[in-house]
Amino acid sequence: MGGVGEIGKNMMVIEQGNDIVIVDSGLMFPDEQMPGIDIVIPDIRYLRERKDKVRGILITHAHEDHIGALPYVLRDFPLVPIHGTKLTLGLIKTKLREHKLADKTIFREIAPGTPFQVGPFSCDSYYVCHSIPDAVGMTIETAQGTIVHSGDWKFDHTPVDGRQTDFARLSEIAAKGVMLLMSDSTRAEVPGYTPSERHVGEIFDGIMSRAQGRIITTTFASNISRIKQIVDIASAWGRKTAIIGRSMENYTKTAKELGYLEYPEGAIIHAGDIGKFPDHELCIITTGSQGEPTSALSRMALGDHRHVAVKEGDTVVMSSNPIPGNEELVSRTVDNLFKLGAEVVYEAANRPHVSGHASQEELKLLLNILQPKHFVPIHGEYRMLVRHARMAIDLGVDPDKSFIITNGDVLEISDRGAKVGEHVASGQVYVDGLGVGDVSQSVMRDRVSIGTEGIFLVVVTIEQQTGAVVAGPDITTRGFVPEEDASALIEEARKKVLEGLSRAQTGPHLAEVSALKNAIHESLSSFLYDRTKRRPMVLPVIMQV
Amino acid sequence: MGGVGEIGKNMMVIEQGNDIVIVDSGLMFPDEQMPGIDIVIPDIRYLRERKDKVRGILITHAHEDHIGALPYVLRDFPLVPIHGTKLTLGLIKTKLREHKLADKTIFREIAPGTPFQVGPFSCDSYYVCHSIPDAVGMTIETAQGTIVHSGDWKFDHTPVDGRQTDFARLSEIAAKGVMLLMSDSTRAEVPGYTPSERHVGEIFDGIMSRAQGRIITTTFASNISRIKQIVDIASAWGRKTAIIGRSMENYTKTAKELGYLEYPEGAIIHAGDIGKFPDHELCIITTGSQGEPTSALSRMALGDHRHVAVKEGDTVVMSSNPIPGNEELVSRTVDNLFKLGAEVVYEAANRPHVSGHASQEELKLLLNILQPKHFVPIHGEYRMLVRHARMAIDLGVDPDKSFIITNGDVLEISDRGAKVGEHVASGQVYVDGLGVGDVSQSVMRDRVSIGTEGIFLVVVTIEQQTGAVVAGPDITTRGFVPEEDASALIEEARKKVLEGLSRAQTGPHLAEVSALKNAIHESLSSFLYDRTKRRPMVLPVIMQV
Repeated sequence: MGGVGEIGKNMMVIEQGNDIVIVDSGLMFPDEQMPGIDIVIPDIRYLRERKDKVRGILITHAHEDHIGALPYVLRDFPLVPIHGTKLTLGLIKTKLREHKLADKTIFREIAPGTPFQVGPFSCDSYYVCHSIPDAVGMTIETAQGTIVHSGDWKFDHTPVDGRQTDFARLSEIAAKGVMLLMSDSTRAEVPGYTPSERHVGEIFDGIMSRAQGRIITTTFASNISRIKQIVDIASAWGRKTAIIGRSMENYTKTAKELGYLEYPEGAIIHAGDIGKFPDHELCIITTGSQGEPTSALSRMALGDHRHVAVKEGDTVVMSSNPIPGNEELVSRTVDNLFKLGAEVVYEAANRPHVSGHASQEELKLLLNILQPKHFVPIHGEYRMLVRHARMAIDLGVDPDKSFIITNGDVLEISDRGAKVGEHVASGQVYVDGLGVGDVSQSVMRDRVSIGTEGIFLVVVTIEQQTGAVVAGPDITTRGFVPEEDASALIEEARKKVLEGLSRAQTGPHLAEVSALKNAIHESLSSFLYDRTKRRPMVLPVIMQV
Repeated sequence: MGGVGEIGKNMMVIEQGNDIVIVDSGLMFPDEQMPGIDIVIPDIRYLRERKDKVRGILITHAHEDHIGALPYVLRDFPLVPIHGTKLTLGLIKTKLREHKLADKTIFREIAPGTPFQVGPFSCDSYYVCHSIPDAVGMTIETAQGTIVHSGDWKFDHTPVDGRQTDFARLSEIAAKGVMLLMSDSTRAEVPGYTPSERHVGEIFDGIMSRAQGRIITTTFASNISRIKQIVDIASAWGRKTAIIGRSMENYTKTAKELGYLEYPEGAIIHAGDIGKFPDHELCIITTGSQGEPTSALSRMALGDHRHVAVKEGDTVVMSSNPIPGNEELVSRTVDNLFKLGAEVVYEAANRPHVSGHASQEELKLLLNILQPKHFVPIHGEYRMLVRHARMAIDLGVDPDKSFIITNGDVLEISDRGAKVGEHVASGQVYVDGLGVGDVSQSVMRDRVSIGTEGIFLVVVTIEQQTGAVVAGPDITTRGFVPEEDASALIEEARKKVLEGLSRAQTGPHLAEVSALKNAIHESLSSFLYDRTKRRPMVLPVIMQV
């Protein structure tokens, strides 16, 4: 339903006979082609038409691109249980509480290595390393054999929480035979190995050893292990840490309550107490790693934050990479921090950050361990899927059994073999305010059109009996030219409207309103284009009295 | 006026007593914060107020960010001569011809090493290597000493046209003493040296040796040396080359006419003749290196180009890097090419591309050769200027004589020393269609607002004497919700409008139109937000009969 041919809104459906199990239900953030949209979720018409078959939703980990669509999906399947590990369920509950859905939902906590049943499917999970704790891959037993869904993963021999991706379990799974592997392709273009999360700590240690003033650092709010490392290292260097930013406060609160985050005694201070400590005893962890304009760091960089004003002597550390599309926002934040006189650690070569996704050599290692019969690269844009599929073929997967699918493709596996069959409904559903799916392509086209060219609104009141203009034409424009500077243009446009109307009105019968509107539209569009080489949306309104 | 604290719209003004010389007059392409804008040019109010002082415009090279504002600047200074090298002037003429300005403009061709006079300023130029031929740095003699403006440059010991950045000339300039160096900071963040353009040829040679089918490659249209290399290598491998894409055809035409581009006999074929040759004898060079949706390559990737349909067996080579902000467009093109079955060479590690800008070690080398007394990093975003200024200080420039300036800052240099003085008018002027500067911030805000939230238009006709509603309220929306699905919402909104109007009409006197508009606005805005959590722009129009 989502996540193949794109990064975001991950959702995989496994169907066998009368039973369906869903893996992940994620959202995607809108791109610049989707003005005004809050989030994008998968189109689940296919599932809605098979409501009675859905037995459960497995969640691999609690990132938004894997859980963000749950509040909407659960509207259709309120009684379908959600299976996930402890922290994953804890974070999902926090999210569902905001949507007032937490009480009604059925949660099933899973523990890696302890099999569980979802309808007819025997399932299990295994630990993987990722940029959020308690992430797992899933195994699902089907009539055709075992399916392995990797979740988002990397190999990390020295993870902060001590939980390596579970090689022993992977070997057991491999021993029984893997019918189909679906694996994370995010970094299928990146050669080599992704460094360990511990590497981040080493870089932070170096930065803290040199910094004279405050350390202000930003990372992804859900990266609990990263936050723990920073607090520990700050503490070792005699610095207290303040955690600032709503989403980060929420994540750390849940993680702490569930036992996934422990700090040294007294290591954390409240943001309001920052003033009580000298600069060299302070570390601030904050949101805004993507340069989001309303985030704490962006506001600090503009001198607009309640608790923290960035100043000379501060060392600001970007402990994150810009997600594609956010590069400019991040660069602007970095520029603003430099303008305030701060030292900024932001470049790829220096910044303390590692990815949570496996690079090429790790992808190959997993393929080699599991030796899957069939392979489907998931979680990636098309070119990444191509790269990942090529690796699988290089490593011995039969080229006819390696499939690049995109959203809505159905891979049919039967005793006769596997093939990509029909294509089912899939696509993007826009969430805008309270509306889910009501923003259509035509509404979006209108937004893009009026948002680039503006509108030119003409209102005329005519007498119904005679067709005579009794008021107007009144002209209002927005986003086109400043009205105050355009009085001559508007005056001329008014004349064009009257000319157009009188042309339309010639003849024995009164013209239809739609004909009058067309007349206005035609006479104005070309006039405005000739004069300005712009094409505002011309909106004629005819009132009859 | 432009180009410091940003990349784009480069324009430097050097003023001494009653005389001004301008270096470059570039444009910037709009970012996503500027919907509908065609291009952005510098605000030259400062110059307009000093019209009589402007003696000449020096152009370092013919890239758009250095020449693109000329058609607009020349409106104010039609008789001010433009000084540039042969190819630079040739390309400027092509541009001015489109604006019907070429005949009226005074051009002065310069030759590196041959001094020329601009008002009281003795000037000269020296060859630099860049991603367009005939690029130069400029020297300008002032009462305070020599200013060196680097232009855009890198060191390249093996450039395709054989013209190295002129070390001998640089040494001569250094020997006389450099009062102020202004140098290109584009790659001040990049360690090491930028590879030679020849490196690109070596990679292409490897690609052509392996490719079985057609080679389709894209690069910047102005990179004449790149195009020449590709044609030569293709020819050596027995391939004919077709050049496709309007801007590339224009650049190569001018370069050929002026003697900057020579092909082997018969190496070039017309796009219409592609079908006459077998695939392994074809090379296609085309526009679209930035994934521009209307470019030839993007259309080929969508199967929508007149002459070329990309197919399995084709090797598509991105001989360019995505400019920040264009990454997603480029990725989409690459994905589409993969979907058509083409092999795509696009990754930083593999693609045949080198920058035209100097990296850190080259920047240091220039600083070391010229030993400037004062230093101003130019042509870079703020953080790049910071990095470049730090290098200068590391290399011995007095920290008090290294200045980070942004657009509009005036660096005053006198016998008493140098300081950043007043800040003059500067900023962005938007060009949209025929309008230059008429799109104000408020028009832009309206575009962003209606482009994300849509409009909600209410028209009511009332009787002037009584205030009674005689027609309407009529409601039209665009970009908000699909009108056809929202009849209930619109019906309720209509009632709200009537309620609001009747509330406003109570009292002995008839309400003013503005009061009625306010009443409509208030009653609707909160109603719509409550119902949809969206805030369309509410536009009330009251007609009186």
